Amino acid sequence: MRPKIRLFVDQPLGQGQPLALTREQSNYLFAVMRLAVGAEVAVFNGRDGEWRARVTQANKKNGALACEEQTAPQVTPPDLWLFFAPIKKARTDFIVEKAAEMGARRIVPVQTDFTNSERIRQDRLQAHAVEAAEQCGTTFVPEVTDLQPLSAVLDHWPDGRRLMFCDEARVGETAGLPPREGAAGPWAILIGPEGGFSEGERTRLGALDFAHTVALGPRILRADTAAVAAMTLWQMQLGDWA
Amino acid sequence: MRPKIRLFVDQPLGQGQPLALTREQSNYLFAVMRLAVGAEVAVFNGRDGEWRARVTQANKKNGALACEEQTAPQVTPPDLWLFFAPIKKARTDFIVEKAAEMGARRIVPVQTDFTNSERIRQDRLQAHAVEAAEQCGTTFVPEVTDLQPLSAVLDHWPDGRRLMFCDEARVGETAGLPPREGAAGPWAILIGPEGGFSEGERTRLGALDFAHTVALGPRILRADTAAVAAMTLWQMQLGDWA
Repeated sequence: MRPKIRLFVDQPLGQGQPLALTREQSNYLFAVMRLAVGAEVAVFNGRDGEWRARVTQANKKNGALACEEQTAPQVTPPDLWLFFAPIKKARTDFIVEKAAEMGARRIVPVQTDFTNSERIRQDRLQAHAVEAAEQCGTTFVPEVTDLQPLSAVLDHWPDGRRLMFCDEARVGETAGLPPREGAAGPWAILIGPEGGFSEGERTRLGALDFAHTVALGPRILRADTAAVAAMTLWQMQLGDWA
Repeated sequence: MRPKIRLFVDQPLGQGQPLALTREQSNYLFAVMRLAVGAEVAVFNGRDGEWRARVTQANKKNGALACEEQTAPQVTPPDLWLFFAPIKKARTDFIVEKAAEMGARRIVPVQTDFTNSERIRQDRLQAHAVEAAEQCGTTFVPEVTDLQPLSAVLDHWPDGRRLMFCDEARVGETAGLPPREGAAGPWAILIGPEGGFSEGERTRLGALDFAHTVALGPRILRADTAAVAAMTLWQMQLGDWA
């Protein structure tokens, strides 16, 4: 029986390795969940797989665990990045959470011509990604970067990475991903803000040889819905769902 | 140029047809958006397509419009129902909103062995579906039913409708939809609650000849993510995205 509680710990994991818990984790385990010494918890650090750990110190402010045994190998999802334009707070949180569940490797908030946000709380979004990873049973946590201007992202596009450009203006058209053969390798998905992309952005994106424009069905999707739908199509056709 | 504001009105639409607005709609158009007599609004009723209407009475409590011209035909999405187990309030609202965006024709909250909710606010969920339809540009509004026990739903399953059963316990397996040929016709999707289905439910569902078990990738998805992912796969393979 696997432990019910999964925790991300940013420390090396290995046989007998002692693990210090943060104040927040200690409070959760020992004040909220009322675990005692000897109780089992699953832990992962994003690099060393999942381990069974046992409570050695049930202190509500600074508890500790000891690693016992690896219960799952490290699995890193396919090389998919998600670029999205931050929207209202709750929906931005949802997009980060969903990107972690759907197996994005990196999550990049981008500032577009029609983006409302001038800044984001990177630390808060990263914490959402950690929480989603704890819940969805993955051993990997995607990195959430700081807000970057879309133009700068495109200026410094990495060699060999393809872009699935989800263009709201093409609602109702059929445009899909290239077939798996010949389309392996690193990819990114770009989801626009409410109101879509500007004419200038669409023209630039349409002319990029690494960009594949994709239409997401006949109805306009909100940005968070579009993000999940796009990641589903990608994972099914080119990623780890197939 | 299409009007920016889209409103659902539960009245017949046609050339010259006068439309009475609800108090809430009047407040939105004339107090919040400050429209004046002569302004244009897009309206739909779920049956007669989309029409351009013009403000004839800009009263904040009981305004009125007149229908002028049909701007889009009625489009009813493919015959897909979504059954889901209600979860926390915010996520239940999201599932209804996403089901409308993704083109579900009917949305049915079901009570399963592990469902927390004893009841739902059907009127509030229906209002969410209307709002989502207004935003996503569709001319159709899915019906949200009252909460129904899963066992009763299966007892009275309609002839000829197939079921895409998204089984959380099969995470990591590959199980897909049948190919388009031979799988046309009415379908439903079933998404479980957090904690999945009970052994009894899984046994019953697995034995139904109209049920196709589908695995949604290698990570555990929250119910709202699973709903969008499942509807994406269905619309792409069997629905109106292809």
